[in-house]
Amino acid sequence: MLHLVSRTDPAWLPRAASHLDEVLLDHAHCEKKAAGAAIKLLFAYPHHRFLQEPLAELAREELEHFQQVLAILDARGVKYQTIRPSPYGMALHAEVRRDEPDRLLDLLCISALIEARSCERFQLLADGLADEDDDARRLYSSLLASEARHHGVYLSLACALVGRDAAEARLAEMARHEAEVVAAPCDRVRLHAG
Amino acid sequence: MLHLVSRTDPAWLPRAASHLDEVLLDHAHCEKKAAGAAIKLLFAYPHHRFLQEPLAELAREELEHFQQVLAILDARGVKYQTIRPSPYGMALHAEVRRDEPDRLLDLLCISALIEARSCERFQLLADGLADEDDDARRLYSSLLASEARHHGVYLSLACALVGRDAAEARLAEMARHEAEVVAAPCDRVRLHAG
Repeated sequence: MLHLVSRTDPAWLPRAASHLDEVLLDHAHCEKKAAGAAIKLLFAYPHHRFLQEPLAELAREELEHFQQVLAILDARGVKYQTIRPSPYGMALHAEVRRDEPDRLLDLLCISALIEARSCERFQLLADGLADEDDDARRLYSSLLASEARHHGVYLSLACALVGRDAAEARLAEMARHEAEVVAAPCDRVRLHAG
Repeated sequence: MLHLVSRTDPAWLPRAASHLDEVLLDHAHCEKKAAGAAIKLLFAYPHHRFLQEPLAELAREELEHFQQVLAILDARGVKYQTIRPSPYGMALHAEVRRDEPDRLLDLLCISALIEARSCERFQLLADGLADEDDDARRLYSSLLASEARHHGVYLSLACALVGRDAAEARLAEMARHEAEVVAAPCDRVRLHAG
Protein backbone atom coordinates (compact mmCIF):
# COMPACT_ATOMS: atom_id res chain seq x y z
CA MET A 1 0.00 0.00 0.00
CA LEU A 2 1.40 3.40 -1.06
CA HIS A 3 4.91 1.94 -1.39
CA LEU A 4 5.00 0.63 2.18
CA VAL A 5 6.61 -2.80 2.42
CA SER A 6 4.91 -3.91 5.63
CA ARG A 7 1.51 -3.96 7.24
CA THR A 8 1.01 -2.81 10.80
CA ASP A 9 1.10 -5.62 13.38
CA PRO A 10 -2.52 -6.48 14.33
CA ALA A 11 -1.55 -5.95 17.99
CA TRP A 12 -1.17 -2.22 17.38
CA LEU A 13 -4.85 -1.33 16.91
CA PRO A 14 -6.15 -2.58 20.27
CA ARG A 15 -3.23 -0.84 22.04
CA ALA A 16 -3.95 2.38 20.16
CA ALA A 17 -7.68 2.14 20.81
CA SER A 18 -7.12 1.72 24.54
CA HIS A 19 -4.72 4.70 24.63
CA LEU A 20 -6.65 6.82 22.19
CA ASP A 21 -6.22 10.12 24.02
CA GLU A 22 -2.46 9.64 23.93
CA VAL A 23 -2.57 8.69 20.25
CA LEU A 24 -4.62 11.80 19.46
CA LEU A 25 -2.17 13.99 21.35
CA ASP A 26 0.74 12.43 19.48
CA HIS A 27 -1.23 12.95 16.28
CA ALA A 28 -1.67 16.68 16.95
CA HIS A 29 2.10 17.05 17.24
CA CYS A 30 2.60 14.96 14.09
CA GLU A 31 0.38 17.31 12.07
CA LYS A 32 2.30 20.31 13.39
CA LYS A 33 5.60 18.62 12.56
CA ALA A 34 4.38 17.76 9.07
CA ALA A 35 3.55 21.42 8.45
CA GLY A 36 6.91 22.44 9.92
CA ALA A 37 8.81 19.99 7.71
CA ALA A 38 7.12 21.27 4.55
CA ILE A 39 7.85 24.89 5.44
CA LYS A 40 11.45 24.04 6.31
CA LEU A 41 11.82 22.76 2.74
CA LEU A 42 10.43 26.07 1.40
CA PHE A 43 13.15 27.91 3.29
CA ALA A 44 15.94 25.46 2.45
CA TYR A 45 15.21 25.15 -1.28
CA PRO A 46 13.94 28.49 -2.63
CA HIS A 47 15.80 27.76 -5.89
CA HIS A 48 13.63 24.71 -6.52
CA ARG A 49 10.64 26.54 -7.94
CA PHE A 50 8.63 23.33 -8.43
CA LEU A 51 8.50 22.68 -4.68
CA GLN A 52 6.96 25.98 -3.67
CA GLU A 53 3.21 25.78 -4.34
CA PRO A 54 2.78 22.06 -3.65
CA LEU A 55 4.51 22.33 -0.27
CA ALA A 56 2.76 25.58 0.68
CA GLU A 57 -0.57 23.93 -0.14
CA LEU A 58 0.36 20.79 1.77
CA ALA A 59 1.49 22.76 4.84
CA ARG A 60 -1.83 24.60 4.86
CA GLU A 61 -3.67 21.28 4.93
CA GLU A 62 -1.49 19.90 7.72
CA LEU A 63 -2.23 22.99 9.78
CA GLU A 64 -5.93 22.54 9.18
CA HIS A 65 -5.64 18.93 10.38
CA PHE A 66 -3.73 20.16 13.42
CA GLN A 67 -6.68 22.42 14.24
CA GLN A 68 -9.12 19.53 13.74
CA VAL A 69 -7.20 17.30 16.13
CA LEU A 70 -7.02 20.12 18.70
CA ALA A 71 -10.82 20.42 18.53
CA ILE A 72 -11.22 16.71 19.26
CA LEU A 73 -8.72 16.86 22.12
CA ASP A 74 -10.73 19.74 23.58
CA ALA A 75 -14.02 17.89 23.17
CA ARG A 76 -12.52 14.87 24.94
CA GLY A 77 -11.10 17.05 27.73
CA VAL A 78 -7.51 16.12 26.87
CA LYS A 79 -4.99 18.83 27.62
CA TYR A 80 -2.79 19.75 24.68
CA GLN A 81 0.79 19.46 25.90
CA THR A 82 4.15 18.12 24.81
CA ILE A 83 4.48 14.36 24.58
CA ARG A 84 7.58 12.23 24.15
CA PRO A 85 7.59 11.28 20.46
CA SER A 86 8.24 7.81 19.08
CA PRO A 87 11.82 7.23 17.81
CA TYR A 88 10.38 6.88 14.27
CA GLY A 89 11.07 10.36 12.85
CA MET A 90 14.59 10.53 14.20
CA ALA A 91 15.41 7.00 13.02
CA LEU A 92 14.21 7.82 9.50
CA HIS A 93 16.15 11.07 9.40
CA ALA A 94 19.34 9.29 10.48
CA GLU A 95 19.43 7.84 6.95
CA VAL A 96 19.40 11.20 5.17
CA ARG A 97 22.50 11.63 3.02
CA ARG A 98 24.47 14.84 3.11
CA ASP A 99 25.05 15.89 -0.49
CA GLU A 100 22.48 17.30 -2.86
CA PRO A 101 20.30 16.22 -4.54
CA ASP A 102 20.51 13.08 -2.35
CA ARG A 103 19.61 15.01 0.76
CA LEU A 104 16.44 16.53 -0.67
CA LEU A 105 15.50 13.24 -2.31
CA ASP A 106 15.80 11.48 1.03
CA LEU A 107 13.74 14.12 2.82
CA LEU A 108 11.00 13.85 0.18
CA CYS A 109 11.04 10.03 0.43
CA ILE A 110 10.80 10.19 4.23
CA SER A 111 7.83 12.52 4.08
CA ALA A 112 6.21 10.29 1.45
CA LEU A 113 6.63 7.27 3.71
CA ILE A 114 5.36 9.03 6.82
CA GLU A 115 2.24 10.07 4.91
CA ALA A 116 1.82 6.51 3.67
CA ARG A 117 2.17 5.00 7.15
CA SER A 118 -0.24 7.57 8.56
CA CYS A 119 -2.71 6.65 5.86
CA GLU A 120 -2.43 2.94 6.67
CA ARG A 121 -2.90 3.52 10.37
CA PHE A 122 -5.73 6.02 9.94
CA GLN A 123 -7.51 3.31 7.97
CA LEU A 124 -7.07 0.88 10.87
CA LEU A 125 -8.41 3.47 13.31
CA ALA A 126 -11.30 4.45 11.03
CA ASP A 127 -12.32 0.79 10.73
CA GLY A 128 -11.48 -0.40 14.22
CA LEU A 129 -12.35 2.23 16.80
CA ALA A 130 -15.40 1.68 18.98
CA ASP A 131 -18.72 3.50 18.60
CA GLU A 132 -17.98 5.53 21.70
CA ASP A 133 -14.98 7.03 19.89
CA ASP A 134 -17.03 8.06 16.91
CA ASP A 135 -15.50 11.59 16.90
CA ALA A 136 -12.02 10.14 16.38
CA ARG A 137 -13.29 7.49 13.98
CA ARG A 138 -14.84 10.13 11.77
CA LEU A 139 -11.69 12.24 11.95
CA TYR A 140 -9.53 9.35 10.76
CA SER A 141 -11.97 8.50 7.96
CA SER A 142 -11.89 12.08 6.79
CA LEU A 143 -8.08 12.39 6.86
CA LEU A 144 -7.29 9.18 4.98
CA ALA A 145 -7.63 10.66 1.53
CA SER A 146 -5.37 13.65 2.26
CA GLU A 147 -2.61 11.42 3.58
CA ALA A 148 -2.73 9.34 0.42
CA ARG A 149 -2.72 12.50 -1.67
CA HIS A 150 0.21 13.95 0.27
CA HIS A 151 2.12 10.73 -0.30
CA GLY A 152 1.56 11.28 -4.01
CA VAL A 153 2.68 14.92 -3.79
CA TYR A 154 5.99 13.98 -2.15
CA LEU A 155 6.59 11.15 -4.59
CA SER A 156 5.90 13.38 -7.59
CA LEU A 157 8.29 16.02 -6.22
CA ALA A 158 10.96 13.33 -5.81
CA CYS A 159 10.36 12.28 -9.43
CA ALA A 160 10.60 15.89 -10.59
CA LEU A 161 13.94 16.15 -8.77
CA VAL A 162 15.77 13.04 -10.01
CA GLY A 163 13.46 11.24 -12.44
CA ARG A 164 11.00 8.45 -11.78
CA ASP A 165 13.41 5.51 -11.74
CA ALA A 166 15.85 7.03 -9.29
CA ALA A 167 13.05 8.34 -7.07
CA GLU A 168 11.28 4.99 -6.90
CA ALA A 169 14.51 3.10 -6.28
CA ARG A 170 15.40 5.27 -3.30
CA LEU A 171 11.83 5.20 -2.02
CA ALA A 172 11.88 1.38 -2.10
CA GLU A 173 15.17 1.36 -0.22
CA MET A 174 13.89 3.71 2.43
CA ALA A 175 10.59 1.84 2.66
CA ARG A 176 12.51 -1.24 3.81
CA HIS A 177 14.13 0.83 6.53
CA GLU A 178 10.78 2.38 7.45
CA ALA A 179 9.23 -1.07 7.92
CA GLU A 180 11.93 -2.00 10.42
CA VAL A 181 11.73 1.28 12.28
CA VAL A 182 7.97 1.33 12.62
CA ALA A 183 7.91 -2.26 13.91
CA ALA A 184 10.58 -1.73 16.57
CA PRO A 185 9.19 -2.32 20.05
CA CYS A 186 8.37 0.94 21.81
CA ASP A 187 7.22 1.53 25.38
CA ARG A 188 4.86 4.27 24.22
CA VAL A 189 1.71 3.95 22.14
CA ARG A 190 2.23 6.24 19.20
CA LEU A 191 0.88 6.77 15.71
CA HIS A 192 4.24 5.71 14.28
CA ALA A 193 5.51 3.06 16.67
CA GLY A 194 5.34 -0.70 17.11
CA MET B 1 -2.92 53.61 12.13
CA LEU B 2 -2.89 50.16 13.78
CA HIS B 3 -0.57 51.40 16.53
CA LEU B 4 2.12 52.58 14.11
CA VAL B 5 3.67 55.88 15.17
CA SER B 6 4.84 57.01 11.74
CA ARG B 7 3.60 57.24 8.20
CA THR B 8 5.70 56.03 5.30
CA ASP B 9 7.77 58.74 3.63
CA PRO B 10 5.98 59.84 0.43
CA ALA B 11 9.21 59.11 -1.48
CA TRP B 12 8.79 55.39 -0.88
CA LEU B 13 5.81 54.79 -3.19
CA PRO B 14 7.39 56.05 -6.45
CA ARG B 15 10.54 54.04 -5.67
CA ALA B 16 8.48 50.90 -4.95
CA ALA B 17 6.35 51.40 -8.06
CA SER B 18 9.42 51.68 -10.26
CA HIS B 19 10.95 48.54 -8.74
CA LEU B 20 7.71 46.63 -8.45
CA ASP B 21 9.09 43.25 -9.52
CA GLU B 22 11.70 43.46 -6.78
CA VAL B 23 9.07 44.54 -4.23
CA LEU B 24 6.86 41.59 -5.21
CA LEU B 25 9.78 39.19 -4.87
CA ASP B 26 10.59 40.60 -1.43
CA HIS B 27 6.91 40.32 -0.60
CA ALA B 28 6.81 36.60 -1.48
CA HIS B 29 9.63 35.96 0.97
CA CYS B 30 7.90 38.11 3.60
CA GLU B 31 4.74 35.98 3.39
CA LYS B 32 6.82 32.83 3.73
CA LYS B 33 8.66 34.31 6.70
CA ALA B 34 5.39 35.36 8.32
CA ALA B 35 4.12 31.77 8.08
CA GLY B 36 7.45 30.48 9.39
CA ALA B 37 7.38 32.86 12.36
CA ALA B 38 3.86 31.79 13.36
CA ILE B 39 4.77 28.11 13.14
CA LYS B 40 7.96 28.68 15.11
CA LEU B 41 5.77 30.03 17.92
CA LEU B 42 3.62 26.87 17.78
CA PHE B 43 6.75 24.78 18.34
CA ALA B 44 8.26 27.06 20.98
CA TYR B 45 5.12 27.53 23.09
CA PRO B 46 3.04 24.31 23.06
CA HIS B 47 2.09 25.01 26.69
CA HIS B 48 0.34 28.23 25.67
CA ARG B 49 -2.89 26.65 24.50
CA PHE B 50 -4.42 29.98 23.51
CA LEU B 51 -1.82 30.54 20.79
CA GLN B 52 -2.39 27.32 18.89
CA GLU B 53 -5.48 27.81 16.71
CA PRO B 54 -5.06 31.53 16.02
CA LEU B 55 -1.46 31.05 14.87
CA ALA B 56 -2.22 27.91 12.86
CA GLU B 57 -5.02 29.80 11.11
CA LEU B 58 -2.81 32.81 10.52
CA ALA B 59 0.02 30.67 9.12
CA ARG B 60 -2.41 29.08 6.68
CA GLU B 61 -3.43 32.50 5.43
CA GLU B 62 0.18 33.65 5.04
CA LEU B 63 0.91 30.54 2.98
CA GLU B 64 -2.08 31.28 0.79
CA HIS B 65 -0.79 34.82 0.26
CA PHE B 66 2.63 33.37 -0.57
CA GLN B 67 0.98 31.30 -3.30
CA GLN B 68 -0.89 34.36 -4.60
CA VAL B 69 2.31 36.38 -4.86
CA LEU B 70 4.07 33.49 -6.63
CA ALA B 71 1.26 33.44 -9.19
CA ILE B 72 1.75 37.16 -9.89
CA LEU B 73 5.53 36.74 -10.14
CA ASP B 74 4.96 33.98 -12.69
CA ALA B 75 2.48 36.07 -14.66
CA ARG B 76 5.01 38.91 -14.77
CA GLY B 77 7.83 36.57 -15.78
CA VAL B 78 9.80 37.27 -12.60
CA LYS B 79 11.94 34.37 -11.41
CA TYR B 80 11.33 33.39 -7.80
CA GLN B 81 14.70 33.41 -6.11
CA THR B 82 16.37 34.54 -2.92
CA ILE B 83 16.71 38.27 -2.42
CA ARG B 84 18.72 40.19 0.14
CA PRO B 85 16.16 41.25 2.77
CA SER B 86 15.89 44.69 4.30
CA PRO B 87 17.53 45.07 7.73
CA TYR B 88 14.04 45.61 9.24
CA GLY B 89 13.29 42.16 10.64
CA MET B 90 16.69 41.70 12.18
CA ALA B 91 16.67 45.20 13.69
CA LEU B 92 13.28 44.58 15.28
CA HIS B 93 14.35 41.20 16.65
CA ALA B 94 17.47 42.72 18.21
CA GLU B 95 15.13 44.28 20.79
CA VAL B 96 13.60 40.99 21.94
CA ARG B 97 14.22 40.40 25.65
CA ARG B 98 15.47 37.08 26.90
CA ASP B 99 13.23 36.08 29.82
CA GLU B 100 9.62 34.91 29.59
CA PRO B 101 6.99 36.19 29.25
CA ASP B 102 8.92 39.24 27.96
CA ARG B 103 10.36 37.28 25.08
CA LEU B 104 7.03 36.04 23.79
CA LEU B 105 5.40 39.43 24.37
CA ASP B 106 8.13 41.06 22.27
CA LEU B 107 7.76 38.52 19.48
CA LEU B 108 4.00 39.05 19.39
CA CYS B 109 4.46 42.85 19.35
CA ILE B 110 6.98 42.61 16.51
CA SER B 111 4.62 40.49 14.44
CA ALA B 112 1.77 42.90 15.20
CA LEU B 113 3.89 45.80 13.99
CA ILE B 114 5.08 44.03 10.84
CA GLU B 115 1.46 43.28 9.94
CA ALA B 116 0.54 46.90 10.62
CA ARG B 117 3.36 48.26 8.47
CA SER B 118 2.51 45.81 5.68
CA CYS B 119 -1.08 46.99 5.85
CA GLU B 120 -0.06 50.64 5.61
CA ARG B 121 2.21 49.98 2.63
CA PHE B 122 -0.27 47.70 0.86
CA GLN B 123 -2.73 50.59 1.06
CA LEU B 124 -0.18 52.90 -0.60
CA LEU B 125 0.42 50.33 -3.34
CA ALA B 126 -3.28 49.62 -3.82
CA ASP B 127 -3.96 53.36 -4.23
CA GLY B 128 -0.82 54.39 -6.04
CA LEU B 129 0.22 51.74 -8.55
CA ALA B 130 -0.32 52.45 -12.25
CA ASP B 131 -3.06 50.90 -14.39
CA GLU B 132 -0.47 48.72 -16.11
CA ASP B 133 0.23 47.06 -12.75
CA ASP B 134 -3.39 46.26 -12.13
CA ASP B 135 -2.57 42.65 -11.13
CA ALA B 136 -0.40 43.84 -8.25
CA ARG B 137 -2.79 46.67 -7.39
CA ARG B 138 -5.65 44.20 -7.02
CA LEU B 139 -3.47 41.86 -4.96
CA TYR B 140 -2.58 44.64 -2.52
CA SER B 141 -6.21 45.73 -2.25
CA SER B 142 -7.24 42.19 -1.46
CA LEU B 143 -4.53 41.61 1.17
CA LEU B 144 -5.10 44.82 3.16
CA ALA B 145 -7.89 43.48 5.31
CA SER B 146 -6.01 40.31 6.32
CA GLU B 147 -2.98 42.30 7.41
CA ALA B 148 -5.16 44.50 9.61
CA ARG B 149 -6.86 41.40 11.01
CA HIS B 150 -3.53 39.69 11.67
CA HIS B 151 -2.36 42.79 13.51
CA GLY B 152 -5.44 42.38 15.72
CA VAL B 153 -4.74 38.68 16.26
CA TYR B 154 -1.20 39.34 17.47
CA LEU B 155 -2.31 42.19 19.69
CA SER B 156 -5.06 40.11 21.25
CA LEU B 157 -2.60 37.26 21.92
CA ALA B 158 -0.25 39.75 23.59
CA CYS B 159 -3.17 40.96 25.74
CA ALA B 160 -4.07 37.37 26.64
CA LEU B 161 -0.46 36.83 27.71
CA VAL B 162 0.17 39.83 29.95
CA GLY B 163 -3.06 41.86 30.10
CA ARG B 164 -4.13 44.82 27.97
CA ASP B 165 -2.20 47.57 29.74
CA ALA B 166 1.15 45.79 29.71
CA ALA B 167 0.68 44.64 26.12
CA GLU B 168 -0.22 48.10 24.84
CA ALA B 169 2.62 49.73 26.76
CA ARG B 170 5.21 47.41 25.21
CA LEU B 171 3.61 47.70 21.77
CA ALA B 172 3.85 51.50 21.99
CA GLU B 173 7.51 51.24 23.00
CA MET B 174 8.33 48.88 20.15
CA ALA B 175 6.30 50.97 17.70
CA ARG B 176 8.67 53.88 18.36
CA HIS B 177 11.60 51.62 17.53
CA GLU B 178 9.79 50.29 14.45
CA ALA B 179 9.28 53.81 13.13
CA GLU B 180 13.02 54.48 13.31
CA VAL B 181 13.97 51.18 11.77
CA VAL B 182 11.56 51.38 8.84
CA ALA B 183 12.69 54.92 8.00
CA ALA B 184 16.41 54.13 8.02
CA PRO B 185 17.95 54.70 4.58
CA CYS B 186 18.39 51.45 2.65
CA ASP B 187 20.08 50.85 -0.69
CA ARG B 188 17.41 48.30 -1.63
CA VAL B 189 13.74 48.92 -2.39
CA ARG B 190 11.86 46.67 -0.01
CA LEU B 191 8.40 46.34 1.50
CA HIS B 192 9.82 47.19 4.91
CA ALA B 193 12.60 49.68 4.22
CA GLY B 194 13.03 53.43 3.90
